[in-house]
Amino acid sequence: MTEETFHGVFPYLVSPVSPRGDVMGDVLHRLCLDLVAAGVHGLTPLGSTGEFAYLTWAQRRRIVEVVVSASAGRVPVVAGVSATTIAEAVRQAQEMEDLGCNGVIAMLESYFPIAEEGVVRYFKAIAAAIRLPIVLYTNPAFQRSDLSLGAIEALSHVPNISYIKDASQNTGRLLSIMNRVGGRMQVFAASSHIPACVMMIGGKGWMAGPACLVPRQSVALYQHCQRGNWDAAMRIQRQLWSFNEIFAAYNLAACIKGGLNQLGYDVGVPVPPQQALSPEGLERIRRLLDEITPTTRDGGH
Amino acid sequence: MTEETFHGVFPYLVSPVSPRGDVMGDVLHRLCLDLVAAGVHGLTPLGSTGEFAYLTWAQRRRIVEVVVSASAGRVPVVAGVSATTIAEAVRQAQEMEDLGCNGVIAMLESYFPIAEEGVVRYFKAIAAAIRLPIVLYTNPAFQRSDLSLGAIEALSHVPNISYIKDASQNTGRLLSIMNRVGGRMQVFAASSHIPACVMMIGGKGWMAGPACLVPRQSVALYQHCQRGNWDAAMRIQRQLWSFNEIFAAYNLAACIKGGLNQLGYDVGVPVPPQQALSPEGLERIRRLLDEITPTTRDGGH
Amino acid sequence: MTEETFHGVFPYLVSPVSPRGDVMGDVLHRLCLDLVAAGVHGLTPLGSTGEFAYLTWAQRRRIVEVVVSASAGRVPVVAGVSATTIAEAVRQAQEMEDLGCNGVIAMLESYFPIAEEGVVRYFKAIAAAIRLPIVLYTNPAFQRSDLSLGAIEALSHVPNISYIKDASQNTGRLLSIMNRVGGRMQVFAASSHIPACVMMIGGKGWMAGPACLVPRQSVALYQHCQRGNWDAAMRIQRQLWSFNEIFAAYNLAACIKGGLNQLGYDVGVPVPPQQALSPEGLERIRRLLDEITPTTRDGGH
Amino acid sequence: MTEETFHGVFPYLVSPVSPRGDVMGDVLHRLCLDLVAAGVHGLTPLGSTGEFAYLTWAQRRRIVEVVVSASAGRVPVVAGVSATTIAEAVRQAQEMEDLGCNGVIAMLESYFPIAEEGVVRYFKAIAAAIRLPIVLYTNPAFQRSDLSLGAIEALSHVPNISYIKDASQNTGRLLSIMNRVGGRMQVFAASSHIPACVMMIGGKGWMAGPACLVPRQSVALYQHCQRGNWDAAMRIQRQLWSFNEIFAAYNLAACIKGGLNQLGYDVGVPVPPQQALSPEGLERIRRLLDEITPTTRDGGH
Repeated sequence: MTEETFHGVFPYLVSPVSPRGDVMGDVLHRLCLDLVAAGVHGLTPLGSTGEFAYLTWAQRRRIVEVVVSASAGRVPVVAGVSATTIAEAVRQAQEMEDLGCNGVIAMLESYFPIAEEGVVRYFKAIAAAIRLPIVLYTNPAFQRSDLSLGAIEALSHVPNISYIKDASQNTGRLLSIMNRVGGRMQVFAASSHIPACVMMIGGKGWMAGPACLVPRQSVALYQHCQRGNWDAAMRIQRQLWSFNEIFAAYNLAACIKGGLNQLGYDVGVPVPPQQALSPEGLERIRRLLDEITPTTRDGGH
Repeated sequence: MTEETFHGVFPYLVSPVSPRGDVMGDVLHRLCLDLVAAGVHGLTPLGSTGEFAYLTWAQRRRIVEVVVSASAGRVPVVAGVSATTIAEAVRQAQEMEDLGCNGVIAMLESYFPIAEEGVVRYFKAIAAAIRLPIVLYTNPAFQRSDLSLGAIEALSHVPNISYIKDASQNTGRLLSIMNRVGGRMQVFAASSHIPACVMMIGGKGWMAGPACLVPRQSVALYQHCQRGNWDAAMRIQRQLWSFNEIFAAYNLAACIKGGLNQLGYDVGVPVPPQQALSPEGLERIRRLLDEITPTTRDGGH
Repeated sequence: MTEETFHGVFPYLVSPVSPRGDVMGDVLHRLCLDLVAAGVHGLTPLGSTGEFAYLTWAQRRRIVEVVVSASAGRVPVVAGVSATTIAEAVRQAQEMEDLGCNGVIAMLESYFPIAEEGVVRYFKAIAAAIRLPIVLYTNPAFQRSDLSLGAIEALSHVPNISYIKDASQNTGRLLSIMNRVGGRMQVFAASSHIPACVMMIGGKGWMAGPACLVPRQSVALYQHCQRGNWDAAMRIQRQLWSFNEIFAAYNLAACIKGGLNQLGYDVGVPVPPQQALSPEGLERIRRLLDEITPTTRDGGH
Repeated sequence: MTEETFHGVFPYLVSPVSPRGDVMGDVLHRLCLDLVAAGVHGLTPLGSTGEFAYLTWAQRRRIVEVVVSASAGRVPVVAGVSATTIAEAVRQAQEMEDLGCNGVIAMLESYFPIAEEGVVRYFKAIAAAIRLPIVLYTNPAFQRSDLSLGAIEALSHVPNISYIKDASQNTGRLLSIMNRVGGRMQVFAASSHIPACVMMIGGKGWMAGPACLVPRQSVALYQHCQRGNWDAAMRIQRQLWSFNEIFAAYNLAACIKGGLNQLGYDVGVPVPPQQALSPEGLERIRRLLDEITPTTRDGGH
C-alpha cells in the first residue's frame, strides 16, 4: 500500500456471524477480495453497518484479522473503535494497530449525555495511544453525543486526527467543517449525503454500506467526480441514490446483508434481536440490483 | 414579466413594521428596487423571514401591495400563504391573486398534528382556488407537519402545483423528490442547503433570506452554476456559506433585519416578543458584510 | 359568582362551528347549562380542545359571548388568549375582559423559538393590560416554547398571575413548581396528568377536555380528593383514566366532539383540514361512555 | 430472606471503581450494610446509576459478588442485566443467577432501533433462561427502544416477568400499565416519578439512586404511604423531591457518587470520560443533605 492519504470509496463491511456466534471468515474474505478487485480504495470493518455494537470483542478481533489478511496491503483497512469509556477505547485502538490496520475510525458510544470536554478528551486519548491516522465518526442518529464545530476544530490540531466522517443528513455541516479546519482534516461523506455533492464541495470520498453492493458503480462515480465530469457523475448518482434511500428506510445491517445474500454472498442475517430484512425490503433491493447493474456497467466504464 | 418559469435567486423579504404596527412602505419599496437592480429573479414577501406568523392580515396585505408595486412586473412576486385552516388559506390565496402576485408559496401551519390526507387536501384546495402557480413550502423545523415523498408525488400531479421549496437540512431529500416527480415539479433550495449543490443535482434556484444582504453575489453564484462553472461557483459558495451559518445560529428575521440596518435600510426590529439581534450577532454580520463585499465584487463580475 | 379563587373541575369546551363557519350557539349554550348543572366549577372556552388555533377572531369572540351568557355568573368563565405577538395578546385579553370573562388562560404561540426573556415579557404584558386573574398555560407538546421553573417563579410575583396549568406529562414538574412558587400561584392539572395525584400533591383542580363528557364523575372525583377519601377517589380515577388515554391517542377536538355527538350534542366536527374522529375511535369512546355511566353513578354519589 | 414479593425502597447502588479499574469492594460493602441497617427493602447493583454501561463484565461480576455477600440474604439483590443481543443478555442473566442474585432487572440497549417484536423476544429469552423473577426496565431517555402498553401486557403473561420499573416522567403511563396488566405485574417507580403518587395509584415501591443518600427518609416515606398516612407522606415527599430534582439536572452517577463522598463513603468519581460532579453541583447536594437530615429525622419516626 502506498503512503497516500485515504480517499475514494470505502465500503462499510458487514460482519457475517453464524447463529452460534462464529465469524464466517470465508465469505468475508471473498467479499473483500471482490471489492478490492472492483476498485474500492479501502475497507472499513466494524462500522455501524458492521454491527460493531452487537459483537463481542473476540468476534470483532476475528473480523479485523480476516479483513487485514484479505486486503494484503493492497488497500488501507480502517477499522471501527467504539466504546463508552476512554480505557476501553484505548485498548481497542492499540489492538487494531497490533492487528495491522492502517487507520481507525473512532466513535464514542454513550449512555448518559457526555459534556463536550469529555468527548474531546476521549478522542484525544485514542489519538495519543496509537500512531495510526484517525477518522472521527459522528452519527447524531445513533449516538447520544455530537461534535460541535468548535470541538472538531480543536481536534483537527491533533496531528493524527486527520479525517472526519459525518453521518448527519446535513450536507451544509460538511462545508462548515471544511471552512473551519483549513485542510488539517479531510472530510468523508456517509450514505446519508449525496456523494457527488460532497465531492464537489471538497470531500475526499465516502464511507458507506451501499458500496458493498455496487462497488463498480461507486468507483465510477468517484472517478467522474475526481475528473470534474459532473454531468456524467450525476447520471450515475441519480441511479445510485435509490440505494441510499432504501438503506435509510430499513435497518442498515439487515439491508446490506440481504442484498449480499442476493448477490451470492452467504453472510447470514443481523445478530438477534435485530431482524432480517423483510420480504418486501428484499424485493426492493432485488429490483434495484437488477436495474442498476446493466445501466451502470455502461456508465461505469 | 416574461412567461418563463420561476428560477434563480428569490430573496425572502423582511417585513418592516413600526413599533405602532404600521408597515414602513418606503424602505420596503427601496429594498425591492435595489434587489431588482442587483439582478434577483423574483421577490418573496411573507416567508418565514418575512415574519408572516407575526403579522395581522392588514399588515400582510399592505406588504404585498408595496412589493407588487415596486416590482412593477419586472420580476415575479411570489407571496406567502399560510394558515391552519383550509378556509383561511383559500381566502388568502385568492386575495394574493387579486393583489397581482405571480405565484404563491403555500405553507400549512398547525397546532395539532394533521394526518397526511388532511395536509394533501389543504394544498389541493389552495391550488383549486386560484390560477397562479404554487410553490409548496416545507419546513420541518418550524412546522408540525411534513410532507412525505408520497404526498409530494401526489401533489405534483396537480397542474398548478409546480414548485417545491424544502427547508430541511437534508439535501438528499431534494434528490429523492426530483427522482420522484419526474419534472412535473421544480425544486428550490432554502438557506439550510448549499445552493451550489442543489443546482448541481437539478434545482432551479433558491429562496432564502441571505440574498437580501448579498444579492449580487447570490446572482453571480447562480450564473456560474447555470453555466456549469462549478469551480468558480464553489469559490463564491464557500464565502457566502458564512451567511447561511449565521442565519442558522440566530432568529432569521432578527438577523436579516439587523444586516439590512447596517446596509442603510431602516427596517426596524422583529415584532415583539421576538428580540432584536444581539450586539454580538450584529458584529458577526457586520464583519461578514465587510469581508464579502470586495471579494465577490471581483468574483461576481 | 363568589369571589373565591378558581378551583375544581373546569371542562375545556369544544367550539361548535358549522361547515360554513358559523358558531352554533344553541348547542354550545345547552352544553354549558348541562355542565353547570352537573356541578363543574368553571368553564374554559378556547383552550386547545376549543380549537382556538383554528378559529377567526370573530368566531372566538362569539363563542365567549355564548359561554358568558350561559354561565350567567354561576361559575367563572376563563377564556383562552393566545397569540404570537404581544400586541395581539394584549388586544385579545382586553376584549375578553370587556366580554365579561372572569379570568384568562394565556398561551404563547410561536413560529421561531423565543428566548425566555421574551416569553416572560409576553405574559407580563398581558397581566399589565387587564385586571382579571391569569392562568399561565404551558403545553410542551404543541408549543415551541416552554416555561422554565425560573421563569415561572419570576412570573409568580406578578399579582394577577395567579394560576398555572401545565400540560406536560411530567407530574414531578408540578411538585417542583409548587415548591418554588410558595403559594403565590396555584396549580391546575391537565388531562395528561392523573388528577388524583395532582390533588394529593397540592393541586387546586384540573382543566381538561374529558370533563365535557363525564362531568358528574369528574366532580365526584374532585370531591373525594378534597375530603381526603383517597381510596374512593382512586376507584373513580382508575375508571376515568381510560378517557385520558383515549384523548392522548387521537386529535383532542375530534375526540371530544365525537363523544359529545354520541351524547346528543350536535357539535359537528373539527375545522378542516383536521379530520373527524375515525369510526374506530368513535367506537372506543362509545364503549367507554357505556361503561362509565352506570358504575360511577354509584361511585360518584 | 423471606419469599415475599419485592416491595419498598430499592436503592440503585453506585459502582465504586478506582482510576486503575479495580472495584473498591470495601466501601461498597460498607454502603450496603448501612443501607440494610437503614431499613431499605432491597439492593439493586448495575442500574443506570451503577454505570453498568461503563463497566467491563469482570467489574460488573465483582460488584454483584460484593453486594450479594453484604446482603447475606437479608434483603433481595436485584442486579442489572443489559445487552444489545439476546445471546449476551441470556449469558449475563444466567451468571447473575449463579452468583446468588434474587432477581434481575432487565434492560435492552440498542444501537439501531429495534422493532417491538424483537424487543419482546429479547425479554422472553431472558425469562426463559433463568428461574429468578424479572423486573422490566424501561427508560426512554437513555434507551432507543420503549415498550408499548401492548408489549408490556404481552410480557406480563410470562410467569417470571413479575415487575416493571418505568423511568419515564409520565406517571399516567404507570396507571395505564396497572390498568392493563391486572395484577400479573407489579409497578415500581423511578426517581423521575413522585414516589408518593405512584404508591397512591398502586405501586409497590421505587428503585432509585437518591435512596443511597437518604435511605431512612425514603423508608419513612414508604411506610407512611403503606399505612395510608398521605399527609405525613407528603410532608416528607416535598422535602425529598429536591433530591430528585438535582439528579435530573446532573449526570446521575456523578451526583450520587458526589453525595456519598460527602457522607464519608469514598466511592470515587464516574468512569471517564464521564465527569465528576461540578463544585456547584456538590454544593447543592451538600446543602440538601444538611437540610434534610434533621428535619426528616423528626418526620421519619
